[in-house]
Amino acid sequence: MEELVHFELTREFVERFQKALDERDNSFIIESLENVKAADISALLYEFNSDESKYVLDLLPLETQAEIINDLDTDTRVNFIKIYQPFELISIINTLHSDDAADILNELPIKVREEVLSGLDPELRHQVIDLLRYEENVAGGLMAKELIKVHDNLTVVQCIEEIRKQAESVDKFYAVYVVNERDVLVGRVSLKDLVISDARKVVSEICEKDIVSVETYMSDLEVADIMRKYDLESVPVVNVQGQLVGRITIDDVVDVITEQAEEDRQLMSGISEDVEEDDSVWRNTRARLPWLLIGIAGGLMNAKFMGLFEEELARITAIAFFTPLIQATGGNVGIQSSSVIVQSLANPGFVYEGFWARLAKVFLVAMLNGLFLSALVFGANELLFNQQKLSLVVSVALFSVVVFASFVGTVTPLILNRFGFNPALASGPFITTTNDLLGLTIYFFTSHLLI
Amino acid sequence: MEELVHFELTREFVERFQKALDERDNSFIIESLENVKAADISALLYEFNSDESKYVLDLLPLETQAEIINDLDTDTRVNFIKIYQPFELISIINTLHSDDAADILNELPIKVREEVLSGLDPELRHQVIDLLRYEENVAGGLMAKELIKVHDNLTVVQCIEEIRKQAESVDKFYAVYVVNERDVLVGRVSLKDLVISDARKVVSEICEKDIVSVETYMSDLEVADIMRKYDLESVPVVNVQGQLVGRITIDDVVDVITEQAEEDRQLMSGISEDVEEDDSVWRNTRARLPWLLIGIAGGLMNAKFMGLFEEELARITAIAFFTPLIQATGGNVGIQSSSVIVQSLANPGFVYEGFWARLAKVFLVAMLNGLFLSALVFGANELLFNQQKLSLVVSVALFSVVVFASFVGTVTPLILNRFGFNPALASGPFITTTNDLLGLTIYFFTSHLLI
Repeated sequence: MEELVHFELTREFVERFQKALDERDNSFIIESLENVKAADISALLYEFNSDESKYVLDLLPLETQAEIINDLDTDTRVNFIKIYQPFELISIINTLHSDDAADILNELPIKVREEVLSGLDPELRHQVIDLLRYEENVAGGLMAKELIKVHDNLTVVQCIEEIRKQAESVDKFYAVYVVNERDVLVGRVSLKDLVISDARKVVSEICEKDIVSVETYMSDLEVADIMRKYDLESVPVVNVQGQLVGRITIDDVVDVITEQAEEDRQLMSGISEDVEEDDSVWRNTRARLPWLLIGIAGGLMNAKFMGLFEEELARITAIAFFTPLIQATGGNVGIQSSSVIVQSLANPGFVYEGFWARLAKVFLVAMLNGLFLSALVFGANELLFNQQKLSLVVSVALFSVVVFASFVGTVTPLILNRFGFNPALASGPFITTTNDLLGLTIYFFTSHLLI
Repeated sequence: MEELVHFELTREFVERFQKALDERDNSFIIESLENVKAADISALLYEFNSDESKYVLDLLPLETQAEIINDLDTDTRVNFIKIYQPFELISIINTLHSDDAADILNELPIKVREEVLSGLDPELRHQVIDLLRYEENVAGGLMAKELIKVHDNLTVVQCIEEIRKQAESVDKFYAVYVVNERDVLVGRVSLKDLVISDARKVVSEICEKDIVSVETYMSDLEVADIMRKYDLESVPVVNVQGQLVGRITIDDVVDVITEQAEEDRQLMSGISEDVEEDDSVWRNTRARLPWLLIGIAGGLMNAKFMGLFEEELARITAIAFFTPLIQATGGNVGIQSSSVIVQSLANPGFVYEGFWARLAKVFLVAMLNGLFLSALVFGANELLFNQQKLSLVVSVALFSVVVFASFVGTVTPLILNRFGFNPALASGPFITTTNDLLGLTIYFFTSHLLI
């Protein structure tokens, strides 16, 4: 057991493995991977190319092959399964659950998909076809069809017998769902209660009735929120008639949460495509360009704007010294404000303060920060530059910038959210660029007025 | 069932509830919350003050009270339970699991903690004392002591009998752990296998032996990675002797993942304390100041640095026009680079490319972006300003800034990670401030050399 947890990819092992691959030393490959978990084999295969990886997989038990392919991230898998023949895909997919099978089929070209679909075991084919009609990011697209359900009028003994029958197709189950004669979900009975209950009781007596369910059309983020809020390890999915059609387990939701966090981080850092460090140089370049271009456009507008004040700048060059300070502070304040809002939008505890109350608070925080920073900068400027008038201009502008940037940082994510965009967008280069221009405008108008 | 999922906080309901509270209309309070889930009651109570909330809680069943208090976030709870008497805390904590009980006890002042501890049920007290010695962010601090374990030499029937006995103290269990005579973990048997197996088999025949476990001292992030990697819904915790001491469930890990994502976002947006929008104005102000001060210090250094070139600026004022463009691009590139690195540090699939290969790729991407942007800006400047020499300076500086900022953005998170800091720190104001100064330096030296 110990060694499984601590299976580590040493450079020596990778090199030895490469040698075995080059020499087609099948027995080494098979033996060295015998007790290794699929996730660890996956990590190992990242070191080799697609053909080598397939060569290794072909030597492994079918279930392990399927588990490894199933765990690949989408981009990697789309490329990898191109080298598979439809008949190979059929036997692999036949060992998977319906939700995972549907995910892989969704990634295949339509012609291959039809061919693979037609070769699947009838029951699985039926389930997969039912799942393929849902978008990936709704409850219907996350759910699996495999579940254990019993009628509410069975006894505990009959129920256990029924579970035995159904359990063959479901290898991991958390709960047994209870439905009525029209297949409408009425509750859930835990294995624990079945195991510890009197065998002659009727299921409806021991089943828990007020359970949480989700509907097929709910978004994956809503499902994640519900499962997190109510601490659920699995949740049944019902259609509009309330009939039980599938179930979603917490591991799928962990993936949703992780992906969302990654997406937020990318939006915040101005990367426009889902890109990873090991993607190609070209893709990495392309993913970064859009936001950089927006920044450049903002920069050119800044330059054009400062051009309007050329005479003033020529007269008092020192005005230019403080544009970085004003702009950096505006950017920092804007990102802080938007980040706090994004977080409270994600936190459903927060409901009632009301738009104006929130705004009032934002202004109060901004005023306090602005006053403190302005006073500080005024003092520092007196010491460092000793130009009283300019110090005054910088401080007044800094105060205004802090207040305005807070406002923009607060309102932008709220507006984005209202119109259905991810509010995290507002913590990225978009708000930085806006705040740069805003800061410059305030600063130069202040200097124009006061000097 | 339906209405439970859709319990919504309407303004009308909150107002009606407030009225009931003011009039001490206990029957309305009790009836309106009768079938509402704890998480929904929690959301409702966010609208009221501590004394009102406690008044409501006191009317609810003890289990519901405990569930609500258990689900509060740490800051809210620390404040809220101040108004509870030790005897009240004792009866609430007695209904909780050991891990949750330990979390709450950890938040109490030492004197109250001792008093509450001494009043707990002996078994729970014993378990909690054992848990209190672990830090919150290691496996030992995450685990619960409640679990079902059986000896490997029992038959299925004896095992079910044993589970019945133990099940009373564990209300949600995923697996039954199998230990040998020295209490060392040897495997796991699923309820499903117990339910569907021949009753006369011995546990060691049907138990799964190569299971993943974690050790008490592992960090919570390692535990989260392992559970995510191997798709586990629960994981047993063993001590250094391999003895089974507890178990961690996926819902605890979902919290770890969510908190980590939030912490990353706060670091990236320059908020130095764990702060939420509904915290006090003062706390919101204080959480923002440190990074703003760093930005201000950077801004003053920028100003001082530009002062060195005062004569040049007075001669060619237009140089100043492009500092925002240079600095914003440097900042954007730096954050993009660090974000990609932070992501691949979080993604354990990535192991072998090696430091120099990564750096080479970063440079290539930077060169491509830099060349493209410089050419574009050169063209734009020719059109907008028509000062060839200045356009050349801006483009050369821009190219250098893109390359340098990529380097800094790549290396900083790697260094932070090496020394045990959260690499997401490098995507925040720290790198922005550094890159601002870097960009300005490159730009002014370029202009000094070329004009």
